[in-house]
Amino acid sequence: MNPDFSYVGFLGFDVFGTVVDWRSGVARAADPFLRKHHLAVDPLDFADEWRALYQPAMQKVRSGERPWVKLDVLNRGNLETVLSRHDADFGAITDAELVDLNKAWERLDPWPDSVEGLTRLKRRFAIGPLSNGHIAGMLNLARFGGLPWDVITGAEVTKSYKPMPQTYLKSADAVGLPPEHVCMMAAHNEDLAAARAAGLRTVFIRRPHEHGPNQTTDLEAKQDWDVVANSLIEAADALGCN
Amino acid sequence: MNPDFSYVGFLGFDVFGTVVDWRSGVARAADPFLRKHHLAVDPLDFADEWRALYQPAMQKVRSGERPWVKLDVLNRGNLETVLSRHDADFGAITDAELVDLNKAWERLDPWPDSVEGLTRLKRRFAIGPLSNGHIAGMLNLARFGGLPWDVITGAEVTKSYKPMPQTYLKSADAVGLPPEHVCMMAAHNEDLAAARAAGLRTVFIRRPHEHGPNQTTDLEAKQDWDVVANSLIEAADALGCN
Repeated sequence: MNPDFSYVGFLGFDVFGTVVDWRSGVARAADPFLRKHHLAVDPLDFADEWRALYQPAMQKVRSGERPWVKLDVLNRGNLETVLSRHDADFGAITDAELVDLNKAWERLDPWPDSVEGLTRLKRRFAIGPLSNGHIAGMLNLARFGGLPWDVITGAEVTKSYKPMPQTYLKSADAVGLPPEHVCMMAAHNEDLAAARAAGLRTVFIRRPHEHGPNQTTDLEAKQDWDVVANSLIEAADALGCN
Repeated sequence: MNPDFSYVGFLGFDVFGTVVDWRSGVARAADPFLRKHHLAVDPLDFADEWRALYQPAMQKVRSGERPWVKLDVLNRGNLETVLSRHDADFGAITDAELVDLNKAWERLDPWPDSVEGLTRLKRRFAIGPLSNGHIAGMLNLARFGGLPWDVITGAEVTKSYKPMPQTYLKSADAVGLPPEHVCMMAAHNEDLAAARAAGLRTVFIRRPHEHGPNQTTDLEAKQDWDVVANSLIEAADALGCN
């Protein structure tokens, strides 16, 4: 095992894109909604458009322009923005439909290697989301997909959004460890760069199809992360978890 | 199944006394420490004395006399108080010894029925601590004893100590449910009374030996709790979890 990990006690995971496939899951949930309401947009494009508003919405919180709110609140606002752009008839859409569609983010399939990889990693390390998702969303995703988390850290526990330093630092504090005894597991170079700057260990998981077949971002490690792996099973191998 | 539970989505557990046996575990950890430092106190009595300071310490937080701090901070102060009462020689005791002894609260055995009961309850309900313990302590207890929590709620997530109403209400909010869709699982009538007042469902688990063979408190249900059981396995039976 990589000697840098001998003192690591907690692996904190990015979830959307790293552990679960948000794009196909959101498209699956959106498809019947879009048909019912006669919105002529491809469900995968709809998922991409919705997701594209995710970082700008969090940025308003990071900058202090608006107070911290849970991710489902941001997702709901973004959903209404995307629907407006497609000239949706809000008079024909019930609040219950929007609530249900917004829960698409809590019903996403894990990547095929995720459950086995997490199960193996959990034998040696405590594991949990270190995600921008809220606690209930992470809980529901875990029960939907069988993700065997020990604890949920990240945005809601720290009242901040990655890549703010406090999301990493307060998550480490919540699990009772100094930052250097925590490892960030993510498919996004920016997330790992911020985690490293905060003192955490880093594992890059390549997810070249998170954004579909034509993905251009995060195809490769942009720094010498402590471990680079093609799946959570490969990460478990690299960290000595059989 | 009790029809009151058809909408329940989350079971929140008291942990110390309800799920784990703190008295024997703390005594086990204290025994070599007391011998080494020539303190003539029975380890079980020592555990009782330490635990007796738990409610008064939390009361200072509930009353606003001191700001909220994690339970391990309160436990550490209480440990020093008990040691002072026994005229311990603090010059001969290292900080590392106190840190380690304080972690006794994170290395407690589950009651014999706990893991099986939780495993069965988890098939139907999301489960997690709704305890006054801090997140890291609950995480470490779970990994020590194999407690299969989905999420950790309670004091640290809500920055409050039971039986304050907000500990129950904010824990329910954290898991995304209204209070009436959450059930408090506890061996203590006072905890359940506060949970019920906050709108939660209630299950009383009889733990007549939490305080040893001469226990006088919480031997029986003091209200008509929704379910009364002698173990978490009995509770799983009562809630239709096979």
